[in-house]
Amino acid sequence: MKIIILGFGAVGQGVARVLSMKEDYLKSNYDLNPQIVAVTDRSGAAIKEDGLDGELLLKTKNETGKISSYPEYGVPGVSSLKVLEEVEYDCLVEVTPTDIDDGEPARSHILKAMEEGKDVVTSNKGPLALSFQELASSAQSNDVEFKFEASVGGAMPILNFAHDNLAGCSIESIYGILNGTTNYILSRMAKEGSSYEQTLSEAQEMGIAETDPYQDVEGIDAACKIVILANSVLNLPVTLKDVEVEGISRITAESIALAKKEGLLIKLIGEASADALEVSPRLVRQGSPFAVEGTLNVATLKTDLADDVTVVGKGAGSVETASAILSDIISIWKIRK
Amino acid sequence: MKIIILGFGAVGQGVARVLSMKEDYLKSNYDLNPQIVAVTDRSGAAIKEDGLDGELLLKTKNETGKISSYPEYGVPGVSSLKVLEEVEYDCLVEVTPTDIDDGEPARSHILKAMEEGKDVVTSNKGPLALSFQELASSAQSNDVEFKFEASVGGAMPILNFAHDNLAGCSIESIYGILNGTTNYILSRMAKEGSSYEQTLSEAQEMGIAETDPYQDVEGIDAACKIVILANSVLNLPVTLKDVEVEGISRITAESIALAKKEGLLIKLIGEASADALEVSPRLVRQGSPFAVEGTLNVATLKTDLADDVTVVGKGAGSVETASAILSDIISIWKIRK
Repeated sequence: MKIIILGFGAVGQGVARVLSMKEDYLKSNYDLNPQIVAVTDRSGAAIKEDGLDGELLLKTKNETGKISSYPEYGVPGVSSLKVLEEVEYDCLVEVTPTDIDDGEPARSHILKAMEEGKDVVTSNKGPLALSFQELASSAQSNDVEFKFEASVGGAMPILNFAHDNLAGCSIESIYGILNGTTNYILSRMAKEGSSYEQTLSEAQEMGIAETDPYQDVEGIDAACKIVILANSVLNLPVTLKDVEVEGISRITAESIALAKKEGLLIKLIGEASADALEVSPRLVRQGSPFAVEGTLNVATLKTDLADDVTVVGKGAGSVETASAILSDIISIWKIRK
Repeated sequence: MKIIILGFGAVGQGVARVLSMKEDYLKSNYDLNPQIVAVTDRSGAAIKEDGLDGELLLKTKNETGKISSYPEYGVPGVSSLKVLEEVEYDCLVEVTPTDIDDGEPARSHILKAMEEGKDVVTSNKGPLALSFQELASSAQSNDVEFKFEASVGGAMPILNFAHDNLAGCSIESIYGILNGTTNYILSRMAKEGSSYEQTLSEAQEMGIAETDPYQDVEGIDAACKIVILANSVLNLPVTLKDVEVEGISRITAESIALAKKEGLLIKLIGEASADALEVSPRLVRQGSPFAVEGTLNVATLKTDLADDVTVVGKGAGSVETASAILSDIISIWKIRK
């Protein structure tokens, strides 16, 4: 299985690391021998038709910041689209940074790969939140596999879970804490009685919140995930602009203290159903699965037969997110081999 | 797909109900048309080669207590083994009561079906906790499917989840609240400061704890599930006698109050790993996924790549448990069709 990785940030590097780590495991458990035939970043690409070396990819990126400095097989300046045209491959792993204005360049990468009959795995929320139906129908008309488990909740397996494990159930709604940064901030505020501003700046110092925290704290990131869940699990053809979004930046220490007195917590909850598409701060009961702390993500599927089923997992992390990409790669391999 | 249901208590009736409810859904989503060709209980059987009526099965059982009173097609006194010999079928659904001394009669039913090349779905913990390896190797040598999602945690999908959704990960250990009755009792004790004896008797009045609560409160039920998880997910060839078990009957209101002061809760936790096979009361942190209340079940899989992944769901309930059986039936259908 020949793989092209577009984008070599935290997730792309995680994929290279995981494919290296799991080489023997994949061979013995699935008879799968994945080869990374090309990797791109802003600097250009590294291309080798019989497989690049995972460790050397990571070392090159770490030491020079440029994947195009890969010894002997680096190609400075080449574009990702050009790489998709000229390199022979089976599966595209699209992990360029998420853009929520037009979903580019990921959208074009994914469509190009599909048009050439290639399977696609992505963690990129942008094109999914803006153009889900276009991508899904391109996958269908080109008869390729399109998997994106890592786009929602990182290592919390929710999409494949809903499709495979609850096969006999109709899923009526999804309800979740889908952003680790805001869950961390709200948990700390509840525990310490601290203000939003103070807690955010501490989270930034610790590297948990980004320097520009806008998409996380204003609920945009969670809203993208709600769109993906609504399309993929509930078959609702919605996009980001259909979601009603309110973030956590106006939540005060006082309101959290008041809730706590009643045995309640304030959490940033995303909801998708035929009637509601929403991200907003809500009250949850202590002792419910939604009372989890830290950067954990949680999602509950309300089903007709199994009642509520909940999954909890790490919403982020390089290797954790890469593990979801790997499980998508394995499921494509099972279909193709 | 011709199905025989052995045992027509809460779970068996749930299966009949769910197959009726989901007739159109199964047809349109999976092109699956399941027919219940025989059902047995202590009284005998109902047998009809072109399919029994689900509603009439439930009505007959409810009104007469005997499935052998099924109009026209009732067969009083016939044994389950005889039914397996004489009725043509594709898949056995074994849902007779769990026996943890010798696993019978379920063990014999399952082996007989396998030897005749039939697929088997069961919720019965007895034969799995006592003879897992025997059953698994019989399934393998007879080349049949053997699924038992409903045996652990009812509607909490954990077995198929571990096998399918975490395909790229090695699972190192499993840690869980696997018994709803004890979780209910411990949650109430923590909330109300009540004694074990008082809380148990209230739970019995409400029908949450059984009249003979021994297997639940002494940890035997949870230990059976730990054995199934250890065999199925971790490939450890263990049986019930290998589990170190301590129940909750000696937990005092005082120790719960003391834990609560430190932000901790006492839960009955089962653990399976290469180093430990154990059910015992342990301290968990408030705000962790293990702090869930009521009759919920929880299981955490510790993985190499995805860190901890947790599933929460209803551990019991007729329709809930039947939904897990239905998802097993669907996955067998996908392989066979």
